[in-house]
Amino acid sequence: MTAAAAPARSLTDIATALGAQLVGDGSVLVRGVAHPAMAEGADTLALAVDESAEKALARTKAAAAAVAEGRAAALAGLKGGIVVKRPRLALAKLLEIFDRPPVSAPGVHPSAVIDPSATVAPDASIGPLCSVGPRARIGARTRLLAQVSIGAGTSIGDDCLVHSGARVGDHCMVGNRVIIQPNAVIGADGFSFVTPEKGSIESARETGRIEAQNLAIVRINSIGNVVLGDEVEIGAGTMVARGTLGPTRIGRGTKIDNLVQVGHNCTIGSNCLIAGNVGISGSVTLGDRVTLAGGVGVADHISIGDDSIVVAGSGVWQSIPPREIWGGYPAQPWKDSQSFYLHVKRLPRMLRDLMALRERIAELEKKLLASGDARPGGRK
Amino acid sequence: MTAAAAPARSLTDIATALGAQLVGDGSVLVRGVAHPAMAEGADTLALAVDESAEKALARTKAAAAAVAEGRAAALAGLKGGIVVKRPRLALAKLLEIFDRPPVSAPGVHPSAVIDPSATVAPDASIGPLCSVGPRARIGARTRLLAQVSIGAGTSIGDDCLVHSGARVGDHCMVGNRVIIQPNAVIGADGFSFVTPEKGSIESARETGRIEAQNLAIVRINSIGNVVLGDEVEIGAGTMVARGTLGPTRIGRGTKIDNLVQVGHNCTIGSNCLIAGNVGISGSVTLGDRVTLAGGVGVADHISIGDDSIVVAGSGVWQSIPPREIWGGYPAQPWKDSQSFYLHVKRLPRMLRDLMALRERIAELEKKLLASGDARPGGRK
Amino acid sequence: MTAAAAPARSLTDIATALGAQLVGDGSVLVRGVAHPAMAEGADTLALAVDESAEKALARTKAAAAAVAEGRAAALAGLKGGIVVKRPRLALAKLLEIFDRPPVSAPGVHPSAVIDPSATVAPDASIGPLCSVGPRARIGARTRLLAQVSIGAGTSIGDDCLVHSGARVGDHCMVGNRVIIQPNAVIGADGFSFVTPEKGSIESARETGRIEAQNLAIVRINSIGNVVLGDEVEIGAGTMVARGTLGPTRIGRGTKIDNLVQVGHNCTIGSNCLIAGNVGISGSVTLGDRVTLAGGVGVADHISIGDDSIVVAGSGVWQSIPPREIWGGYPAQPWKDSQSFYLHVKRLPRMLRDLMALRERIAELEKKLLASGDARPGGRK
Repeated sequence: MTAAAAPARSLTDIATALGAQLVGDGSVLVRGVAHPAMAEGADTLALAVDESAEKALARTKAAAAAVAEGRAAALAGLKGGIVVKRPRLALAKLLEIFDRPPVSAPGVHPSAVIDPSATVAPDASIGPLCSVGPRARIGARTRLLAQVSIGAGTSIGDDCLVHSGARVGDHCMVGNRVIIQPNAVIGADGFSFVTPEKGSIESARETGRIEAQNLAIVRINSIGNVVLGDEVEIGAGTMVARGTLGPTRIGRGTKIDNLVQVGHNCTIGSNCLIAGNVGISGSVTLGDRVTLAGGVGVADHISIGDDSIVVAGSGVWQSIPPREIWGGYPAQPWKDSQSFYLHVKRLPRMLRDLMALRERIAELEKKLLASGDARPGGRK
Repeated sequence: MTAAAAPARSLTDIATALGAQLVGDGSVLVRGVAHPAMAEGADTLALAVDESAEKALARTKAAAAAVAEGRAAALAGLKGGIVVKRPRLALAKLLEIFDRPPVSAPGVHPSAVIDPSATVAPDASIGPLCSVGPRARIGARTRLLAQVSIGAGTSIGDDCLVHSGARVGDHCMVGNRVIIQPNAVIGADGFSFVTPEKGSIESARETGRIEAQNLAIVRINSIGNVVLGDEVEIGAGTMVARGTLGPTRIGRGTKIDNLVQVGHNCTIGSNCLIAGNVGISGSVTLGDRVTLAGGVGVADHISIGDDSIVVAGSGVWQSIPPREIWGGYPAQPWKDSQSFYLHVKRLPRMLRDLMALRERIAELEKKLLASGDARPGGRK
Repeated sequence: MTAAAAPARSLTDIATALGAQLVGDGSVLVRGVAHPAMAEGADTLALAVDESAEKALARTKAAAAAVAEGRAAALAGLKGGIVVKRPRLALAKLLEIFDRPPVSAPGVHPSAVIDPSATVAPDASIGPLCSVGPRARIGARTRLLAQVSIGAGTSIGDDCLVHSGARVGDHCMVGNRVIIQPNAVIGADGFSFVTPEKGSIESARETGRIEAQNLAIVRINSIGNVVLGDEVEIGAGTMVARGTLGPTRIGRGTKIDNLVQVGHNCTIGSNCLIAGNVGISGSVTLGDRVTLAGGVGVADHISIGDDSIVVAGSGVWQSIPPREIWGGYPAQPWKDSQSFYLHVKRLPRMLRDLMALRERIAELEKKLLASGDARPGGRK
């Protein structure tokens, strides 16, 4: 039942761990990191990597601070500090050192229900009121917090962290060092239906009109599963549907934010970043290192190439090549979308221009008529 | 604790069940279906209903395959096969025969908490750590997987499947053969508030300006419920709010995908298809067989007529008649939206044209002025 | 285990409680409220505050009704009624009197797992299969329904209602009279990552092109928490991420609908109204009494001023001053967005106009050429 505070580290140690420049007294002991204004004592390292935080250093309780390159002067008045090159990376490393992981107890909580045929690593932690189904496997040092469900035949790798209320359905495969946030669902059924006769959607696609009705809807069951690669992170309330016949795959290192929908049969590459409220339809393929910003929607059977970025709030209706930035609704190369917004902004002026031209033409026509009339034999 | 594989079926049986044409040896035994490349043995029926799958038949381990009409030639080299007319419908039927349903055990798991006043059918299955409230009723052959909550006075029909972590609040009514995916919520309270004095929203509606403030916000409690018709499916993480006074209704056969919001007091017809990430505000009425594609938003008190389709990512701010295809933001008849996008694409050219015309007019004006000057008595 | 019906109240009592005008027999006893068509007996107060409900009064079983100001004539035929000034406010008050709150039992359910170091108020109600972590505190009269998780060191105030399956992570602070709907998550980790070297997103921001790849992704752990003010309401399936170092804050009285994402480090003011499917990125600041309509997306580090309203489906990419109405994608002052939509609607006509002008100019040019040719010495 440990929320064990990280052990104290000297400033010298920290500078070494971060590859940062040490300034002042390297023997200062640090037990945590905080914004300068929120440091609770001298043993906190104040993070002052932006201008407003730097100002707050004047009144901090911390004895030491981290500042960005070129800003070492801000450390004056403190016992010591470190100068970091890439502040967010330094933040990541500091929060790895001084992490405050979710509290969990070793072993299997007596209230958890573990099927006798399941395999749980002896050093795994299974929290209160978890359910682990038949033939499931829970890897070494993996922690399930409270009220997690692991389905039948599902395998969870080593060093995973599955937060409260997360569900992993039957027959899924979760890699090592995977994090699943609270109430996420891995392995819901795919949304897959067919009408016995031609239905309204097919009719609309073929003729642009509704000439058929969905009088009956037949379910296509999902017998596939979900496979999550190593180091994947799945956000809170995010839903990943299982494949119809085979797997829905999420590649190694891909991070997915909260309330994201990943449809059935999708193949998501490695190291993708998928922000909150994104909706990915069925059978979508994302390459490696694709970034989808918040609220993006992707239509079914679309491919998005390696390293491409889709701007927030966009609707992707056609496939995107690698290394491109797309956006808008429907999404197009972002430069075209931006040009579109600029042109749209000019519309009122265009309309005024158009009306002005019309008047000038009318005037010209009058004049020409008059001058034509004035000349004998002039054309009308 | 059965994940019982489906019993083997002969190819002849399968052809008969599907109304498909049999090719070759009808005695081939089939125990499952798979993509040709993923078939694990001769007793798998390879599904080769599209071109790429057809190519994979050359190297499949399967002894038999299903192909689309007119493609029977692709079965050469196999022991047998079936030729199907409507491949997705055949897929649905095959996955009904060879389904791999969620693993569940008969009876009430000892860790489940069933209120003594609840009624559970003897052949229902109540999974580990479920909670069934006072006076609730669970119908025949209905399965609750792990950690499901059923509220007080709520009735779940026969042959339902309620996945892990799904919540059905108090006083709701769920029909027969309903499927509720993991972590879905039926019967959350409606989002319904009022300000004692006129607030900012009313002011904005009346005057187009913010002339009042929401200094206090009073809650309108929800004492209604949710009623789900037979064969409804509710997606993972989908939220259906209860009515204020009466029911929020979802009609028979309607299928809702993941992460969908259905607001309080809505009436959704039968056989609707509602894709992922859709948001339906309060008091919306959907007719029968309405399709909302992914990410659609519908404003409150809107009606959408029977058989109409709303295109992905659209925002519906006005009611839609039956049998129409609408789309865009704000949504309008889809043809108008498409014409809008086409016109918008022409904007840069329009702007260039406009500037070219302006130059030609200026040139004309100069000429006319010159020619006018040249003539005695010419008008200026 | 009480779903105790509210005690009967006389019409006189009700009129007094609502500050409404009494009509007819004030001794009529009322036990509940309903739409006139759904009133189950004479002891129901029929709510007839709009035209269609008023018509249904002719056939209601209710003996009394509530009508809007100026509509007292509609009470003819009933034993009595009340005339209310602000119908929705009257509805709120009536549903406070005749509420049907979720059923819960006093005390701690034996199946709940309460860490010995947690503090639970003696009059709190902890439902079946709840988990309350080490050093957590549950306030007076607070009710946790079924299968709720409360993390280590987390404090829940007095008179709160936490619905089934809601999760509040470690170290969070929840005020008094807070309502958390089913399967909501308070305190998931923030979505915060950094690439050791410059990545694709930074490259895109700096150059408009993808000139770097996210070859490694490093996690920034979240050691902050979430702080919810008094009277906050969090919708079903809504996700609030914890701060990186400090708190994500939601101010007193703010109401959030279902399936909303609130990113890490956000500061949301008091009395805000945030509708369903809204996505708020990290480090966003909302003032007091801000309204975000359904499906709005807000980019990171944006501020929205007090009392401002953002129209449904909009994407906010720049900060919004107080007391303004914004909308569209990207959001701009709503009047400009509306003008944009009007102009876009005129595009087809503009195009036709442009083509007509071009023809008239060509005609003019021809004429001028002809007339110029006709005159000796005319300029070409």
